[in-house]
Amino acid sequence: MNRIGLIRTLTTSDRPLFHTHGQVLQAALPVSVESRSIPGQPDGVHDAESLARAVPRVRALAAELAPQVDGILISCSADPGLPEAREAAGIPVAGAGSSGAAAALALGSRVGVLGITPEAPAAAADVLGGPLAAVEAPPSVRVTTDLLTPTGVFETLEASERLADAGADVILLACTGLTSMGVARELRRRLGLPVVDGVLAAGAALACGNGPTPRPRPRAAA
Amino acid sequence: MNRIGLIRTLTTSDRPLFHTHGQVLQAALPVSVESRSIPGQPDGVHDAESLARAVPRVRALAAELAPQVDGILISCSADPGLPEAREAAGIPVAGAGSSGAAAALALGSRVGVLGITPEAPAAAADVLGGPLAAVEAPPSVRVTTDLLTPTGVFETLEASERLADAGADVILLACTGLTSMGVARELRRRLGLPVVDGVLAAGAALACGNGPTPRPRPRAAA
Repeated sequence: MNRIGLIRTLTTSDRPLFHTHGQVLQAALPVSVESRSIPGQPDGVHDAESLARAVPRVRALAAELAPQVDGILISCSADPGLPEAREAAGIPVAGAGSSGAAAALALGSRVGVLGITPEAPAAAADVLGGPLAAVEAPPSVRVTTDLLTPTGVFETLEASERLADAGADVILLACTGLTSMGVARELRRRLGLPVVDGVLAAGAALACGNGPTPRPRPRAAA
Repeated sequence: MNRIGLIRTLTTSDRPLFHTHGQVLQAALPVSVESRSIPGQPDGVHDAESLARAVPRVRALAAELAPQVDGILISCSADPGLPEAREAAGIPVAGAGSSGAAAALALGSRVGVLGITPEAPAAAADVLGGPLAAVEAPPSVRVTTDLLTPTGVFETLEASERLADAGADVILLACTGLTSMGVARELRRRLGLPVVDGVLAAGAALACGNGPTPRPRPRAAA
């Protein structure tokens, strides 16, 4: 069993919402998940300023979780604090942004990015490079929790249809509020395209590339 | 349940060897696997000529498997015929080379590529870009089946140690003969680094990004 420490970048007292990402992972992969939220960010990460504020908070949680788990998942498509968390944790750390982009590249050659910002998160765009086909966002949505309303759901479907019309052959969910919405299956059904959930992709990378807790490398004992 | 059609690019009458990749996937992920081998390649894919020969054979098998499965996995780190298979199959197709590279990028920033050729397979190198740290191969190994000998196993460990010494923070298995060897867990234990198996990474991409068989997109019915 692989133990994943999951860092939510949304501060919430809504317990079902808090546990959603962990439950999605546990339902899909042979992992157990311990979730934690960074403090002080009830609007999550949605712009450069909120991203910068999240970095030291993610780093601190990664250091705190590392002794108890086999790998750490930063459950935000902006991958806030990914290099910092890797350095602090000393165990594998995956972010939903780069992992999702990587999984999308494995499935298609024209990636349609569906998020909450007009540009793809840098964490995803850096991995995607050329195969980024188009970026769309629900126009009424400013922060991740705005997705979890009927307006957010309708506009998410419409945005995904624009991506399909633009020629995308795979859809990347580039805000993990879409994981909380649980919309991937319905988009797959309606669009007839693979839809990549970054939280699941990061979990799969940890589950497949990690295994038992790595130990320090033995040196020159023979 | 996700049904994966798995294309082996090694022609073999050794039934346990033939089924190894499918068994690895079924043990790790909630998928069922139907395996097929391309004909006429008892040495698998190990150079430009054998790669070119594999392309139409992979394409033909992808077309044949597509009606029966939800996604197709080309179980070779060179991803022979990946674009051709995508076009022929019309369902998600993932290759072990690009998927493994993508999963490695999700786990580290200096990828050590362990294969059977002096250069990384183009399918992996194209995805890795800058974060490719070093490439190593067991010197006595020419074709994938050479890996499955004591010499192949010893030299694989030594090659992986050279990658760790060169500063790799994640190891990418860039020949699926290493999946057949089942060496990932032992390398993780000895090196203390995450080790990415491309077959598992491609399976995870299909399992997470695919779901039920995509259907043609409904158009303008409302």
